[in-house]
Amino acid sequence: MDKLKVVKIGGHVIENREALFLFLKDFAALKGPKILVHGGGKEATQMAKTLGIQVQMIEGRRVTDAQNLDLITMLYAGKLNKSIVAQLQGLGCNSLGLTGADGNSILAVKRPKTPVDFGFVGDPTGVNQNLFELLLTTGITPVCCALTHDGKGQLLNTNADTIAATLASALSKNYEVSLYYCFEKKGVLADLEEETSVIPLINKQSYLELQAQGKLHTGMLPKLKNCFTALEDGVKQVFIGDTQLIQSTTSSTQITL
Amino acid sequence: MDKLKVVKIGGHVIENREALFLFLKDFAALKGPKILVHGGGKEATQMAKTLGIQVQMIEGRRVTDAQNLDLITMLYAGKLNKSIVAQLQGLGCNSLGLTGADGNSILAVKRPKTPVDFGFVGDPTGVNQNLFELLLTTGITPVCCALTHDGKGQLLNTNADTIAATLASALSKNYEVSLYYCFEKKGVLADLEEETSVIPLINKQSYLELQAQGKLHTGMLPKLKNCFTALEDGVKQVFIGDTQLIQSTTSSTQITL
Repeated sequence: MDKLKVVKIGGHVIENREALFLFLKDFAALKGPKILVHGGGKEATQMAKTLGIQVQMIEGRRVTDAQNLDLITMLYAGKLNKSIVAQLQGLGCNSLGLTGADGNSILAVKRPKTPVDFGFVGDPTGVNQNLFELLLTTGITPVCCALTHDGKGQLLNTNADTIAATLASALSKNYEVSLYYCFEKKGVLADLEEETSVIPLINKQSYLELQAQGKLHTGMLPKLKNCFTALEDGVKQVFIGDTQLIQSTTSSTQITL
Repeated sequence: MDKLKVVKIGGHVIENREALFLFLKDFAALKGPKILVHGGGKEATQMAKTLGIQVQMIEGRRVTDAQNLDLITMLYAGKLNKSIVAQLQGLGCNSLGLTGADGNSILAVKRPKTPVDFGFVGDPTGVNQNLFELLLTTGITPVCCALTHDGKGQLLNTNADTIAATLASALSKNYEVSLYYCFEKKGVLADLEEETSVIPLINKQSYLELQAQGKLHTGMLPKLKNCFTALEDGVKQVFIGDTQLIQSTTSSTQITL
């Protein structure tokens, strides 16, 4: 089986123009088939303010009403996705930007209104493997943003970590997939105050222990769940770290079952 | 040779949610390979005001500075393009949205700063025929917005009429291409005050006569030039009309050499 790298980059890299370009340079230089998945960053919140769009939060999570969905679509699928694609082209990497609606690449179902109505938020239900394989075998690098669709005309806001795991899982049928979650830390930290306290390996058992000890940041829990799901679905290896991760996994956290 | 329809829709259809949906229904129902090209509409100007972004006009044409390019990318490649793609998916048409940067679909050169510096505006220099043919033969309908790139990392604002003509021309090497320019009138009017005064046929000679008589609206001149260029490049037939055009060309204007 061919090897495939699925790389997810998060908020902090995206918010810094220079850091993003440096990352894209490294990403463009990666050999072999690869997919980039990107989150959004804080610009959506800032622009919502400027445009006078209300941002409602429930349990620390954003509610995506129609106006916020438009805003996210403009920023994620428009400005950010196209800026990344244009930059990658300039770096010699033939990339193509996708929402889940494009080529029906990622189908999702709108999250039920109960117990909490998060609005236009989607949970992925299917990946168009044929499309991804067609692009990858043609030498095109898909660049996926955090939007899916319901197949009935509706775009849906979808967590970028989940999109990365979903893609990695689906494509592990025909590829030996490595999944890389890049964020601002060098990995999962044993002590949040200590940047060097990277835990080199987390498996399901140590995950439960760390969780019981209250050592895992709440933001890390869904990310780790995505990692385990991907591994259970056949993804070969999963790493969490900073943007150096795609060059070398030595100082990152590897997740195993 | 297979037949290919290249359809361009302009501002007025795009600005009306219901009219756009009705058009997309007809477009989705068109048999055979097809490409949709869309312009922008007035939302960019409105949103520039809201965001406090200056819009500079020279000779009636918008200057695209960095802020305006971002805005256009958000609205055209983001909100509008993805809304169209999602709606087409809901209508059973497997579509995929593209800027010129995506898959290097349309390469352009930034317009020289002299005599007039229009900013980040591009004139197309090449079409990635392989990509379009790959998508079309896979049953995917490309949906192109009014953005190209320079191949060096820079997105460029590009006239949607020109994009439609450029695509039609490039693809006429392997397809029998029909090009449809849909706007708010039934065709080119002999009398702008009289909606029924559609000129059924304009060729190069009658074009020069109409122009000499001052009968052509200045906005129509570049559109007609695009039509003639497309025909000279091998496009089979070119029509100008309203959105009914893609169903029936009987009450439109056909352009011939």
